[in-house]
Amino acid sequence: MDEKRLASVRNNLARRGLTQALIVDPLSIWWLCGYHTEPYERFLALLVTADGTPTLFANRLFPSADGCGAHVASFSDTEDPVALVAERTNAREPLGVDKDLAARWLVPLMEAGAASGFVLASDAVDDARSIKDARERELMRAASATNDEAMAWLARQVRPGVTERQIADGLLAEYRRLGAQDHSFSPIVSFGDHAADPHHEPDDTPFAPGDMVLFDVGCKRDWYCSDMTRTFFTAEPTEHQRAVYDAVLRANEAAEKIVRPGVTFAEIDRAARSVIEEAGWGEAFTHRLGHQIGLVDHEPGDVSAAHDEPVRPGQCFSIEPGIYLPGDMGVRIEDLVIVTEDGCEVLNRYPKELTVLGHPQK
Amino acid sequence: MDEKRLASVRNNLARRGLTQALIVDPLSIWWLCGYHTEPYERFLALLVTADGTPTLFANRLFPSADGCGAHVASFSDTEDPVALVAERTNAREPLGVDKDLAARWLVPLMEAGAASGFVLASDAVDDARSIKDARERELMRAASATNDEAMAWLARQVRPGVTERQIADGLLAEYRRLGAQDHSFSPIVSFGDHAADPHHEPDDTPFAPGDMVLFDVGCKRDWYCSDMTRTFFTAEPTEHQRAVYDAVLRANEAAEKIVRPGVTFAEIDRAARSVIEEAGWGEAFTHRLGHQIGLVDHEPGDVSAAHDEPVRPGQCFSIEPGIYLPGDMGVRIEDLVIVTEDGCEVLNRYPKELTVLGHPQK
Repeated sequence: MDEKRLASVRNNLARRGLTQALIVDPLSIWWLCGYHTEPYERFLALLVTADGTPTLFANRLFPSADGCGAHVASFSDTEDPVALVAERTNAREPLGVDKDLAARWLVPLMEAGAASGFVLASDAVDDARSIKDARERELMRAASATNDEAMAWLARQVRPGVTERQIADGLLAEYRRLGAQDHSFSPIVSFGDHAADPHHEPDDTPFAPGDMVLFDVGCKRDWYCSDMTRTFFTAEPTEHQRAVYDAVLRANEAAEKIVRPGVTFAEIDRAARSVIEEAGWGEAFTHRLGHQIGLVDHEPGDVSAAHDEPVRPGQCFSIEPGIYLPGDMGVRIEDLVIVTEDGCEVLNRYPKELTVLGHPQK
Repeated sequence: MDEKRLASVRNNLARRGLTQALIVDPLSIWWLCGYHTEPYERFLALLVTADGTPTLFANRLFPSADGCGAHVASFSDTEDPVALVAERTNAREPLGVDKDLAARWLVPLMEAGAASGFVLASDAVDDARSIKDARERELMRAASATNDEAMAWLARQVRPGVTERQIADGLLAEYRRLGAQDHSFSPIVSFGDHAADPHHEPDDTPFAPGDMVLFDVGCKRDWYCSDMTRTFFTAEPTEHQRAVYDAVLRANEAAEKIVRPGVTFAEIDRAARSVIEEAGWGEAFTHRLGHQIGLVDHEPGDVSAAHDEPVRPGQCFSIEPGIYLPGDMGVRIEDLVIVTEDGCEVLNRYPKELTVLGHPQK
């Protein structure tokens, strides 16, 4: 059990007036007590109370949780874990629940009267997780350094006839060769106007010389995630293409420039969005500017107009403006940043200036 | 919109006294209206009412749902989908909710008073999905035929020095070559006593001649899943090893033999478990006998002592008894079956008689 992290979660719960919370996100459980398993449809939860040792509820089929520092309450496939939880909660107090707790467990917990009320409380954990400590910052840097190397590999794969899927399928072996364990999300490889769909799934389209190429990829390395996007040209850009690329790049840089403690997430989104609006493509920037990241690629706390909290040192998020013109082209340029005491550290070093592959621009 | 499937779901809802239900499982949504996207942390749901056209709630960032046959209610990242749902539900009636609906949506729906009560109702969809129609049975057969071919490939990969991970990592390319799209779950490759952990994750352990080898693998082909386990010897088995293997094989066969409409899931589990108990290893068979399968590898409705409903024609599930002896050995033999009018069809043809790789037993 990481006592410092547990104290941070308890502190956040107390500020929300909560004395008990049920955490089900397997990565939050790992982050707190070092035990990890993927429960799929089975029940896995950590009950944290205001004091005392937390209780881990784990199916007997899971790997042993001995030594994780929590009390372990185990059960088999034919036993009801909801009854086990209800025995250990305080029915006269509200229970904080993880946002990921599925209705299959939440509705029976309510029917069992396990608490006097049920309130969303995973922000208490998410908030604690969002502030990366020194060790975590080091791991975030390492994952993004690996992603920079992978982007160089990706750029070298672009040759006539290669398909989006071939490049995407080959990336995992390259990540492993570089020391990462896995993708942090399914890689996006988009040729030509496929890049106008921000979530395009790689298909069997072959590369044709002159196509623009977008890579949005990330790896997991020692549990922590990277995430970066670069958009390349493979022929001299038209004036229109250059203007679109330039607007996205300036938006990316404008946002990164203003990140420092006290500036709000909404202001960072606005800094990028203003550049694109002024260039006349505001409607074509269809998504939030970014998302927090850590043990998973998308962690809570958007970089968007809807999030007006100030950023704090140790928070890590993406800055990823884009312009999407269906049937024509798409550009996105994404870096990860960590907020420092007086600004931010950009984790990605891979160049983002307009590049024509095979013909680097002078 | 598949009107026959929709009618089947509505019929199930009516039998539970429900006039409205919110479905969030992306595959259930696909199964009903042919629209598919992976929403990750964003909101995607289909509201089915007793009559009228269902409403699909979809983020504007998702691919277009035009033409899916549902009314589409779209929203952006900065809008609140819960309010959109609450506008369209009947607040004076209970709302059936999908078991996968996350607390992040369910708690706000409750706070918004979107319904007079919230009850788990995905069994209405799951029950409809569990009965495979003729077209679906054909797809289940095709996926398992591909898995049979993949098992032959796996058996050929066993050679001195090869690691569990190398074999597991190579399987996706083989599945693709055979026409499948993906794994249906993360493949299990276990050498030696690793097989004593039913959920062992492939690691860098090299194969040593004489090791027993367990493969538990499945593919997705045209949306439908396969899942099969075989355990091989690579040296002449000891008497003890042969007895364990024989008990698992007889348990597998005893269960497959009694499957027909009217027999309960619990009775099928019992048929296999009795064989293993009588052989003296009852405690070492640590899990349910099987699970239903279709669009995902594990569908609701265990083959276990806790499930005393009778099986019905069109249901498809695994029969996978095992004996796990930590530090010594593990054996599991798994097939998929589809219940027919008067028995069952075993989908896997790959041999399950005791086999010494390289030295097939006469």
